[in-house]
Order: sequence, then C-alpha cells, then structure tokens
Amino acid sequence: MRYELYYWPGVQGRGEFVRLALEEGRADYVDVARVEKDGVGAMTRILNGEGTTQPPFAPPFLKAGKLIIGQTANILLYLGRRHGLAPASEAGQLWTHQIQLTFTDMLVQIHDVHHPIASSLYYEEQKAEAKRRAEDFHKNRLQKYLGYFESLLQQNPKGDKWLVGGRLTYADLSLFQVVEGLYYAFPRAMARQASRIPRTLALRDRVKERPRIAAYLASERRIPFNQQGIFRHYDELDI
Amino acid sequence: MRYELYYWPGVQGRGEFVRLALEEGRADYVDVARVEKDGVGAMTRILNGEGTTQPPFAPPFLKAGKLIIGQTANILLYLGRRHGLAPASEAGQLWTHQIQLTFTDMLVQIHDVHHPIASSLYYEEQKAEAKRRAEDFHKNRLQKYLGYFESLLQQNPKGDKWLVGGRLTYADLSLFQVVEGLYYAFPRAMARQASRIPRTLALRDRVKERPRIAAYLASERRIPFNQQGIFRHYDELDI
Repeated sequence: MRYELYYWPGVQGRGEFVRLALEEGRADYVDVARVEKDGVGAMTRILNGEGTTQPPFAPPFLKAGKLIIGQTANILLYLGRRHGLAPASEAGQLWTHQIQLTFTDMLVQIHDVHHPIASSLYYEEQKAEAKRRAEDFHKNRLQKYLGYFESLLQQNPKGDKWLVGGRLTYADLSLFQVVEGLYYAFPRAMARQASRIPRTLALRDRVKERPRIAAYLASERRIPFNQQGIFRHYDELDI
Repeated sequence: MRYELYYWPGVQGRGEFVRLALEEGRADYVDVARVEKDGVGAMTRILNGEGTTQPPFAPPFLKAGKLIIGQTANILLYLGRRHGLAPASEAGQLWTHQIQLTFTDMLVQIHDVHHPIASSLYYEEQKAEAKRRAEDFHKNRLQKYLGYFESLLQQNPKGDKWLVGGRLTYADLSLFQVVEGLYYAFPRAMARQASRIPRTLALRDRVKERPRIAAYLASERRIPFNQQGIFRHYDELDI
C-alpha cells in the first residue's frame, strides 16, 4: 500500500515528524502537496469533508487505504505498529505515545514564542508580546523539557541510547527533529544547554547517521528550516 | 483493579476528562490528591521519578497496576478500550483518539486566552495581551472548532447523537466538558454560537442526563468550575 501524506508543501512543520517515520520505516509514500499538481487543492477538499465523513481538523493527515488519520501523534501511533518504530506491547506503545504527546505540547510552546497572540497575525504585529513570551520560555520551559527527555534516556533500564527500550522508536526521530529545530531557532540558548544534555545530543547524532535518515536529509525531500515553520530564528528571541 | 488518578486537587482541569471517563465507565478509582493525606506529595514524588523509570512530564496520570499512564488523551485511549468507551476496531479507536487530540489542541488555545505570555505569571500581569488574544480567539478560533465538532455530528453515518458511530465514546464526554467549560468562561460568546450548534448542545444535554454522569455531577467528587482551571471567566475576555 502506498500511503498519501497531506501537509503544507513549504515547511517542515508537524508533517516532518511523519516524514521521518515514513523514511526510517521504509514506507512507500507520496507527499501529495509537494509532488502532485493541485496537491494543496486535494488536501483542502479532504479538510472540507469531500469524500469523507471523518475529515481531520488540520494537516498533517495520512491516507492509508480507506483510512484517513489526522493528528501527528495519532499518525505515528499507527505507523509505529506497522513499521517497527514502536514496541510490540501495549504498555510500550502507550509509553512511546506518551512521550510523543509531550513533544506535541512542547511544539505548541515553541511555536507560540514567535506567535503568542495569534497565528493569523504576522510576527511583526506581536513582536513585543513575543519578546515577553520568549523570556519566560527560556527561563522556565526550555530547560525543563530538555531536562525531562535527558532524564528519560538516563533512566532507561535498557541503556541511554534510545528513549524507549533498546531500539529506536518514532519518539527518537521526534527528539532528533526537536533538537535540530531548537538549534535553528535558538542557537545561543542551545549552546548554553548543550553540556546538560549529552545523551540527547548523542541520540541526535545517532539518528542523523542512520542510513535512511542520512539519505533523506541529503535529498530534496527534506525541506530546509525556514521562517514559516514551527521553528523560526529571530535573533531577539534567542535570549 | 483499583485505578489511581493523580491530578491537582483544586481544579477540574485536564484531569476532569479522565474523571468523566472513569465515572461513566464505572471504574473503581481513587482520586489520590483529593482524598489521600499527602496525595499531592505522592503525585510529586512520581513526577520526580521516585519508584519509576517512566515518570510523566505533568499531571494528570493514571496508575493502572504497574502501568503509569500520562497525557490525558493517552489515558483515555487506554480506558476507552477497557470500559466500553471506544469502538472495538482499530480504525474506530484511531478516529476517536484523533477527535480527542483535537480537543487537546483546543484546550491549549482556551487556556492561553487568559495566559498568553506565561503560566508562571498571574492573569493581571498579562491582561493587555490576554485581551488581544481573546479578540483573535473569538474572531478566528471558537467558531471554527465548534463548527468542526458540529459537522462531525451532522456527518456521522450512524446519526447525529454521538461523535463516533452509534454509541457514546469518551470523545462525547469530552465534548460535554468543553461546552460546559466554554459556557462558564464565555457565556456571551456562547449565547451567540448556540443557534449554530444544535446537535452539540443536544449531545451536551444527553451526556448530562446519563445516570452515572448525573450522579457524578451532583456529588462532591465534581469540583465546580473556578478561576484556577483551564476555563476561567473574565468579563473583559468574553467579547
């Protein structure tokens, strides 16, 4: 079965967490809005409920045969079971999913650093508020989240290579992506965090060097970080 | 097995979505921080990783035997399967979970109307920003979310009584709670929405009248809405 991924064509965004899982899981997929003529139109029609009684609220979503699966973490829950990217046990799957949902929470906070008032407004229209929110993010949130994931690696009874058990899961792919994004958005803040999160940075390198991920990152399928995604670099917000 | 629910004792918050599922699912549970001496201390120790290598990042979490399950939607995924609150099929479970994750997103936006800058600051310290965020919420977000859930009811091939198929799921309990909370926080805005969401309001009433939910709501186990939770009423934000 060839999966169809639907996501905005110009950004990594939340779709990137799905792309990484599809690539590492060696899944056959098409990134519809990037490669098909009128792909964004096709995406919009599904969001508007054409041809389905179960439209997702927002992208990304994945068509898997007749199924349309929305919500990033939900898509990963589904893919994890099928592509060796999650443990086989229910307890292991719940734990992996729980970590992924913690990334979901963190991503909203990262995004809202540059858009604390409204996604419908430009950054320039909420710059003062963004500065205030960035101060709190750097003081109270960034280290708390990074420290949490580092502690999960440290406490993993199967060793500190991966977040869950002794094998890579989609949660590791997501941690890689979050760390890469944070380095793009906040290089100064991350330079200060680095000595506190050695296991996390080693995991980031380990993921990056996996053959399928390395090939993906070197390909045109990987969209570069840019100023329209979740992770954006504004010098004044990198405190 | 007696479940242990861990959540802040003074607010409905995210824990309420779990409480509603436990009550409707006739589960044996103890609301640890509300009924046990030093319950908050016990919660804090688990969050700090005492006695577990898989600590949740934040409450609520549920102890189910040896399992510790964090993240509200993840807990409901687990309970749904065991207490008749989700379909038996994988496709049905993914769809129910997807709707729940859309509530998760919406709840962050509802919370951030009164706390757009930082949870660590008082409302009074971010009142001006909250006003701006409230304007966007009422203009762009509230109707979009409510209209989405209404359209799911309208399009459900099994009828417009429940969100998923022909039976109540935990997603319906969550829709009830969201609507109740929105009426507490934004009575004027909701009065304007009411004529647009007849199926949603009928579902709210249907949930409220279910015997176990009605008994729960009338009991002391139900914490009233208050000004410390996700849903807070500030007159100036009810535009």
